[in-house]
Amino acid sequence: MFETAELGRTLASEEYKKIVPELRQELLEVQRQLLNNGSFQVILIFAGVDGAGKSEIVNLLNSWMDPRWLVTHAYGPPSDEESERPEYWRYWRDLPPKGQIGLLLSTWYSRPILDYVYGEHNLANFDKRLDRITGMEKGLADNGALILKFWLHLDKASQQQRFQSLEQDPLNAWRVTEEDWKHWELYDGFMGAAEHCIRKTSTGEAPWHIVEGGDLKYSAVTVARTLCDSIRLQLERIKHEAELAAVAKSRLQPQPQDSETATDQDRGREVVRPSVPTVLSNLDNDLRLSKEEYQQQLSTLQGEINQLQHQAHESNISTLLVFEGADAAGKGGAIRRVISALDAKHYKVVPIAAPTDEERAQPYLWRFWRHLPRAGRLTIFDRSWYGRVLVERVEGFATEQEWRRAYREINDFEEQLAEHDILVIKYWLHITPEEQLDRFDARAATPYKQWKLTEEDWRNREKWADYELAVNDMVERTSTSLAPWTLVEANDKRFARVKVLQTLRDRLQQKLSKTIHSDP
Amino acid sequence: MFETAELGRTLASEEYKKIVPELRQELLEVQRQLLNNGSFQVILIFAGVDGAGKSEIVNLLNSWMDPRWLVTHAYGPPSDEESERPEYWRYWRDLPPKGQIGLLLSTWYSRPILDYVYGEHNLANFDKRLDRITGMEKGLADNGALILKFWLHLDKASQQQRFQSLEQDPLNAWRVTEEDWKHWELYDGFMGAAEHCIRKTSTGEAPWHIVEGGDLKYSAVTVARTLCDSIRLQLERIKHEAELAAVAKSRLQPQPQDSETATDQDRGREVVRPSVPTVLSNLDNDLRLSKEEYQQQLSTLQGEINQLQHQAHESNISTLLVFEGADAAGKGGAIRRVISALDAKHYKVVPIAAPTDEERAQPYLWRFWRHLPRAGRLTIFDRSWYGRVLVERVEGFATEQEWRRAYREINDFEEQLAEHDILVIKYWLHITPEEQLDRFDARAATPYKQWKLTEEDWRNREKWADYELAVNDMVERTSTSLAPWTLVEANDKRFARVKVLQTLRDRLQQKLSKTIHSDP
Repeated sequence: MFETAELGRTLASEEYKKIVPELRQELLEVQRQLLNNGSFQVILIFAGVDGAGKSEIVNLLNSWMDPRWLVTHAYGPPSDEESERPEYWRYWRDLPPKGQIGLLLSTWYSRPILDYVYGEHNLANFDKRLDRITGMEKGLADNGALILKFWLHLDKASQQQRFQSLEQDPLNAWRVTEEDWKHWELYDGFMGAAEHCIRKTSTGEAPWHIVEGGDLKYSAVTVARTLCDSIRLQLERIKHEAELAAVAKSRLQPQPQDSETATDQDRGREVVRPSVPTVLSNLDNDLRLSKEEYQQQLSTLQGEINQLQHQAHESNISTLLVFEGADAAGKGGAIRRVISALDAKHYKVVPIAAPTDEERAQPYLWRFWRHLPRAGRLTIFDRSWYGRVLVERVEGFATEQEWRRAYREINDFEEQLAEHDILVIKYWLHITPEEQLDRFDARAATPYKQWKLTEEDWRNREKWADYELAVNDMVERTSTSLAPWTLVEANDKRFARVKVLQTLRDRLQQKLSKTIHSDP
Repeated sequence: MFETAELGRTLASEEYKKIVPELRQELLEVQRQLLNNGSFQVILIFAGVDGAGKSEIVNLLNSWMDPRWLVTHAYGPPSDEESERPEYWRYWRDLPPKGQIGLLLSTWYSRPILDYVYGEHNLANFDKRLDRITGMEKGLADNGALILKFWLHLDKASQQQRFQSLEQDPLNAWRVTEEDWKHWELYDGFMGAAEHCIRKTSTGEAPWHIVEGGDLKYSAVTVARTLCDSIRLQLERIKHEAELAAVAKSRLQPQPQDSETATDQDRGREVVRPSVPTVLSNLDNDLRLSKEEYQQQLSTLQGEINQLQHQAHESNISTLLVFEGADAAGKGGAIRRVISALDAKHYKVVPIAAPTDEERAQPYLWRFWRHLPRAGRLTIFDRSWYGRVLVERVEGFATEQEWRRAYREINDFEEQLAEHDILVIKYWLHITPEEQLDRFDARAATPYKQWKLTEEDWRNREKWADYELAVNDMVERTSTSLAPWTLVEANDKRFARVKVLQTLRDRLQQKLSKTIHSDP
């Protein structure tokens, strides 16, 4: 695999001096085009043999390009805030926004390769982590990111020479550590792991470029050229796709105008249910709790949850609660009953509405990653990442491709949460269209609740069947053993709130008993 | 001071049950108005005697209000990411955005009081920290924030009773710690410190409310009422001020239209200098470096800086570089020569342009606080917080009140940086209007540089005198011994770059020698 990177390629100084000014101008130009286009970010990953010049290339690129739209990250041991979240949280946190370029060193490839070479992980575990990587990279690429991965190679003898020459330079001797020499002794093992890693993770979305690392002038120019060409290609692809889309659109029949443009008083009152049974069809909408039962269970449950959350906090167990449901299904009321049981110091409620502009400049899941709680805390999402496969699907805010692939993205995300031992509880609060109508009417009749009822709520009712089918698909595809959905019969608010609390209590109990048993 | 909070005030259960539903509705209503208004955030600070019910009040407020626009923060020991920044960084990070409410527990009052009571700080240090607090609170209030501070009081006997009754309840016994009893024994010392603290920090912008803490019903309702009334009052004040401003505006003479509405080819070519001497008048604009001198000094300086920054990184010394200067003064070129000397892993370049919407929802300095580097790193600001007293002042984007008070806000900010041992280096790159004109003409004549020249650049030239006076005031008011300005004669790019690098080298050297000498 690395033979072609052991050819001793170099770039003569004169040629280098001729090339670099033009190359720099080209880099600045593509940077400007990227920034103006603003629809994707570029992620460069540098990995490879120590001493092959990764840092030096990154430094050169930094001095060649406009540093304002460029960011470099190198990853050492995680900070405590990072360790309290899933492994990839810090990479998500550092993603460059669309229009900009990120240069990443010692990133998600480092630990898996090291752990395998040191024998701390077996091949199966190594492969599992490489799968996680391809999933991450595919997710980023699907969201538009351009990913370029550079493997800087040196043969064993050249690596030795490189270390020795650094050690002889008093200004640079500190760059060579004992660990470097230890890795050098493990050279063959590293190469085996590297080859396996590159084979497994070189994908169409995120291919590896193996670059010979002996001569900085050669390698830096090679990387810079690849960067320029790839950005240009991506910009052309985007332009081409936009043209195709415009042609396709112009050939479509003009859409008939909505026939109900006149405001219809009765609009949204009648609702069409889906013609096929859904997971919601089997729910017993008549489940009810009397006021007395409710009061008694509510206070018992809240007391239990308070104690359990105290234990969870002590055990550093974090929890995510996801609330989804039709308008007026009672999400807010249920959330208030949950937080009444909790210490306000331990939770945060995150309402999901329109993204901010910083969020729009990132892949879809970024705005949820950023809210993951520190150890022992809860985040309560009032609506969530499931918006992608619910409202965005039904209303056409996401393309079919986007919402279809979201199932996998979401399952990946929740798997990472589960692996980090975060408890994920997802509630769908189900009400019947008749119950919703009653609640809308009640809102309309109560002066201080009228603001909660909008034209959009009525419009959404017209798409009841679409929403119900979307819920069905969502549950079918994302109710996993790691993060199951809890369907809550919510026609009766008291019943729904108690079921929400019971589920939280049971899941906390279960989690705590597992954690305590698995503790050494 | 606390006598009026030892009257044994309670709220009977019946009355409480009658009051709370109305109060909740009122709270929800003011929350909605606050959100709709969106021009300020509300910060509630809770402090006081342990066991007086601070957490319980916060929990009740959380269950009464809409949790989506409310956030609670309690501060324990700082995380490592927090310790690497100035003390207040974490409070800035957690500020609620405008339109929302933050409830803060164990916040900036905790450590100063504890350190004083435990004898770790003397009165002078205590007072210094209280001054810092009033500065912080004034800054927030000046930026629109509504700050309410509640001191929850209990007399010594009641505190003892409270701890004892918690200890007897098996579900709550964990809430009482050894430290709580230790503090109880120091009760009188705490009260003395508290009284001093309250006297010193009760200001017009951020007054203390002393609340009797024996009865949760009484204290929670008192806090909630104060919150409602204060938000309403603030909203009325804002409305009133807007009306006054509208009246004042309508009485003003109509502004004469700019007489040069026709595009004048020569517009901006002639420049009026200020009629009084400024700090820029004394600069020697003829300072020059030959190409050879430049090349030689550049590479020596970059080598020295590289080594120094390596040492600074090892010593956890962080650095902020601030670049200001007229258009085309050469900020970008100077920044590139600085970063060529640095390891890309250690720095970040932050270009300051229009704020994002998340930044607009915060006080002015928030968007600079968020970029403070971790230990041992550099942040390079390409334009900075000085925009407030330069472009925003001259162009009228900031009111006179805003830019006038910015000098103090900025000095406070930089003092906090200096206290955290962050090296702050501020460069003003000065060119003459004639030199700027030459550079503009050169840009206009170079195809790939034309985009760098905008209509705005020409407009700014017409206000040269205003800008120069603004620079003069800025240097006069913000060049402090902790963070002095370096004025750089920049008519010759080579001279300017070398001076920038020399300054960086000298300041790093100075800082390192101090740090090494002060190390134990």
